[in-house]
Amino acid sequence: MTKAVFYHAGCPVCINAENRITEIVDRNKYDVEIVHLGEHKGRIAEAEAAGVKSVPALVLGHDVLHINHGASMAEVKG
Amino acid sequence: MTKAVFYHAGCPVCINAENRITEIVDRNKYDVEIVHLGEHKGRIAEAEAAGVKSVPALVLGHDVLHINHGASMAEVKG
Repeated sequence: MTKAVFYHAGCPVCINAENRITEIVDRNKYDVEIVHLGEHKGRIAEAEAAGVKSVPALVLGHDVLHINHGASMAEVKG
Repeated sequence: MTKAVFYHAGCPVCINAENRITEIVDRNKYDVEIVHLGEHKGRIAEAEAAGVKSVPALVLGHDVLHINHGASMAEVKG
């Protein structure tokens, strides 16, 4: 089982991307954790360390897939 | 089986996204067609009609997921 983390901030673009990503991912191979950075600001540093520049974003191992554009990390930090 | 179309233009960002997307997609539910717009310029209009603004992008029904940024459609048209 491969771990994947989907970071978002609750914005409409984020929710739409979350719905599509959770639909298409093969749950037999991937365990997707959904993290709302607005509600879990303590995990912003972890997301940035993984290379997340904006949300929504899906982190898969060493790769970051930025999916459409909801908000920059600066906006997420408020 | 739901049809999905992944549009790209052969750029490194595109190839990386293609690899990740083809890995994560549940092939029991989705039939993913890969379209290289540089090699199939006749399909650029179709991609634009679907809402593709840049590549790589994954079209799922009425939604477009722009994944990272390889090239704008203007750049793809050359």
